Amino acid sequence: MSPSLPADTDTQRLCEAQTATFFTTQSIRGILQPRSLEEVQECMREANRSGTPVYPVSSGRNWGYGSRVPPADGCVLLDLSRINRIVELNERLGYVTVEPGVTQRQLFAFLKERGSGLWMDATGSSPDCSLIGNAVERGFGHTPYGDHFANVCGLQVVLPSGEIAGTGFAGMPQAKAAEVYRWGSGPSLDGLFSQSNLGIVMRMSIWLMPAPEYFQAWFFQSPEQKALGEFIDALRPLRMNGTLRSTVHIANDYKVLNGLQQFPEGETTPLMPETMKGYAAKLKFGRWNGSGALYGTRAQVAEARRMLRRALKGKVSKIQFLDDRTLALAARFSRPYRWATGLDLSKTLEIVRPVFGLMKGEPTTAMLGSAYWRKKTPAPADPNPDRDRCGLIWLAPVAPAEGASVSELVGIAESTLLAHGFEPLISLTMITERSVACVISIAYDREVQGEDERAMACYRATEAALAERGFYPYRLGIQSMNGGSALLRTLKRAVDPNNILAPGRYLQAKP
Amino acid sequence: MSPSLPADTDTQRLCEAQTATFFTTQSIRGILQPRSLEEVQECMREANRSGTPVYPVSSGRNWGYGSRVPPADGCVLLDLSRINRIVELNERLGYVTVEPGVTQRQLFAFLKERGSGLWMDATGSSPDCSLIGNAVERGFGHTPYGDHFANVCGLQVVLPSGEIAGTGFAGMPQAKAAEVYRWGSGPSLDGLFSQSNLGIVMRMSIWLMPAPEYFQAWFFQSPEQKALGEFIDALRPLRMNGTLRSTVHIANDYKVLNGLQQFPEGETTPLMPETMKGYAAKLKFGRWNGSGALYGTRAQVAEARRMLRRALKGKVSKIQFLDDRTLALAARFSRPYRWATGLDLSKTLEIVRPVFGLMKGEPTTAMLGSAYWRKKTPAPADPNPDRDRCGLIWLAPVAPAEGASVSELVGIAESTLLAHGFEPLISLTMITERSVACVISIAYDREVQGEDERAMACYRATEAALAERGFYPYRLGIQSMNGGSALLRTLKRAVDPNNILAPGRYLQAKP
Repeated sequence: MSPSLPADTDTQRLCEAQTATFFTTQSIRGILQPRSLEEVQECMREANRSGTPVYPVSSGRNWGYGSRVPPADGCVLLDLSRINRIVELNERLGYVTVEPGVTQRQLFAFLKERGSGLWMDATGSSPDCSLIGNAVERGFGHTPYGDHFANVCGLQVVLPSGEIAGTGFAGMPQAKAAEVYRWGSGPSLDGLFSQSNLGIVMRMSIWLMPAPEYFQAWFFQSPEQKALGEFIDALRPLRMNGTLRSTVHIANDYKVLNGLQQFPEGETTPLMPETMKGYAAKLKFGRWNGSGALYGTRAQVAEARRMLRRALKGKVSKIQFLDDRTLALAARFSRPYRWATGLDLSKTLEIVRPVFGLMKGEPTTAMLGSAYWRKKTPAPADPNPDRDRCGLIWLAPVAPAEGASVSELVGIAESTLLAHGFEPLISLTMITERSVACVISIAYDREVQGEDERAMACYRATEAALAERGFYPYRLGIQSMNGGSALLRTLKRAVDPNNILAPGRYLQAKP
Repeated sequence: MSPSLPADTDTQRLCEAQTATFFTTQSIRGILQPRSLEEVQECMREANRSGTPVYPVSSGRNWGYGSRVPPADGCVLLDLSRINRIVELNERLGYVTVEPGVTQRQLFAFLKERGSGLWMDATGSSPDCSLIGNAVERGFGHTPYGDHFANVCGLQVVLPSGEIAGTGFAGMPQAKAAEVYRWGSGPSLDGLFSQSNLGIVMRMSIWLMPAPEYFQAWFFQSPEQKALGEFIDALRPLRMNGTLRSTVHIANDYKVLNGLQQFPEGETTPLMPETMKGYAAKLKFGRWNGSGALYGTRAQVAEARRMLRRALKGKVSKIQFLDDRTLALAARFSRPYRWATGLDLSKTLEIVRPVFGLMKGEPTTAMLGSAYWRKKTPAPADPNPDRDRCGLIWLAPVAPAEGASVSELVGIAESTLLAHGFEPLISLTMITERSVACVISIAYDREVQGEDERAMACYRATEAALAERGFYPYRLGIQSMNGGSALLRTLKRAVDPNNILAPGRYLQAKP
């Protein structure tokens, strides 16, 4: 593209980059891998000169939403993974400043190596996903800092023109509070650069939580269909009064089975609820399966535990608490336990351990296997859903944290997916005090003739049925970025008159 | 301005509206008082047709920062105070949706009347200040919801063109989560409309906290200069680990005296630190005086109290806890107590009670009197600093929540104000887990010849000395809105090509 930074046009690599976990037709012209801020600026200037649009990705692991594939045809991919310095760690104020190539794995290792007293928040996706990429897409995790974009500050951005802008106090010289006070003075622009095509975030401070004195995870389940609404209504007050400081995750029966194994051999698709019940009974999970964690001093955790027990009493069939010590004990005794009882605790531990770790901000590869649900071969040691032609489409509508709304949303999703021949793999996250983000996975095998089309038809039908009832996604896949308000289009035209930065991303260009 | 909505051009009322708490020269052409969204839209369309700029105010009580006076000359004032419906209260999800004219007083009375289980957060300014006005200026209060703009959602905005835009899911039809999930999908635009001249916020949902089972306020003081840095460093970890969920306020000795009485008769200005010491000793307050509150169950509060005591041990000389019961007792026994000890508890209660109330979200008029510090006559029953020619300039720099930074900031502010002949009336608010907002008041009597100029010179010197060291304000007075990035100017030109909405507000128009 630019003489100093030639685009990679190797057919194999282009083909890989053009492959998502669902059917797409967009082609990529080349791949640029800049190594510095200045090179990114130069790429943007050259893009304006040549009129060739560029599509930035940080680590490119936007699986389920389009991976590295641009919404528009003919872009050059701007791969930022080589710009990957951890610029600053501030132990006292609890933040880290990173570049777009910094991954979850990298930060986790860095904190460990430094003996840091801070915990990161990890999303359940790949350990190799970018922190900036996930935060600007407004992804979420499992600790009190689970709403990622609510915990970032002081962005440095390359605008479509190639110029640099800072948000908040990061736009001021030598600002002492740039990493800790998000608003700055004047209009706050952080939000403009999330889920957007208005700029490339090149640097971001992410707040980190101090490791608590004591940590305890909790798990519950219920076999009852109606329990969902009841425990959402019971947990909301605890989220709102600050007792539950972190996100709460709830998986339906299908999602748990999806976490434990691939589609059961010998069953026909879709696996119907009646059949599902048998698996739940056999493998000892519920129709609904919740998890969360408590953070604080021993006394704080004890009081939160008391309140949680009281809130859930009579609404769930089982509630269990687990800390580092009990987890270690369970692992140690799983073999004799099995011998004595016949129950395989190690299987339970296999699914519990990564969830437990995530609640402490530990990235895991364990979740990636779930993309292989309908594949005929098991997930490999290095899962890559794009490469392995896993079919995966995510749809992530938001509901208010009220039993009736959440139940309505889940009801629509489950029935629509089943009607289209797909298992409703559903997780719910009480992401803020007042809202629940639902992630609906349509998982299939791209090798099966016609499945790409059937899966997308199912996605469209679900999306439409939910929108009809006022449930909209917190995040969009590249196949759904056809909205955008008149105001947004005005802003886009102003900052990117040539429409060369990620055209069509979260914003359909209209006249 | 428009035939259907004639502008008020009464000289007396224009003159009042042109008066702030410091010297300004901008004149106002007229005052419009629309009664509906549609009338506001019509005002904007007419403004574009006629080229006359409009300057919106909600309640106009932006005291210390410019009151109702526009930064640019020749605007028509758009007074939104008549658009004042409380549109919705959602008791379960904890939010209220309001229009710009809704005041703190109005919402507080509304919640009381409804027997609501929710608490609002109040700012210490006038009970008659607008909730939207304060939130979009990113004002703050005293409860866990103290960072106001962090607790709003789903804005409805009139753009300079007169068109309407919604932020987050409020831009989507029938969205169920518009009031509870702030980001929506696509770029998040809320921030664009705070401290800005890009749109007029006509509707906003504000999150309200559930009243806690138990509430306890705490107060501490220290006579030691060096204590400031020590207790900031001791309190930060408690803010960061979620034990202290609300803002913590710290006043220097001058600010406490300013709260208790007017400038002491017979003393010369400025009141020097040595003299100040005598008043502090006599009236029993410290060099530094802190307050905060604990919210939760009795057990949660007890544990927080234990941690707070431990953190502050040896760093402050006194720490006292106060709940509704002990406050009532103190009031009852203040007379016999005085008789027995000679100490006047009622004087202490006079200053404690409104602070105590603020920590429960109760608006108060008690703080307004402080603007009359240097006036020769006492504050009237209906204080109005504009009308009464109180001199008041606020400067509100932000520091990271670190002892060294906060001490440096306060040192610069105190010495600069004293050198210019003004008492350094300073309060510090640990507004977020990681940052401290400092409010420096330059209070004077506008009736005194030359004081307007001396006060503004003092303000400029302090502003410059702080910026030199990287401390920038969280909010600006109309006399300081000469910044704004190139990016902001691009956005402004795009949404307001005729520059008719609040020209110069937070953004100097440059070619």
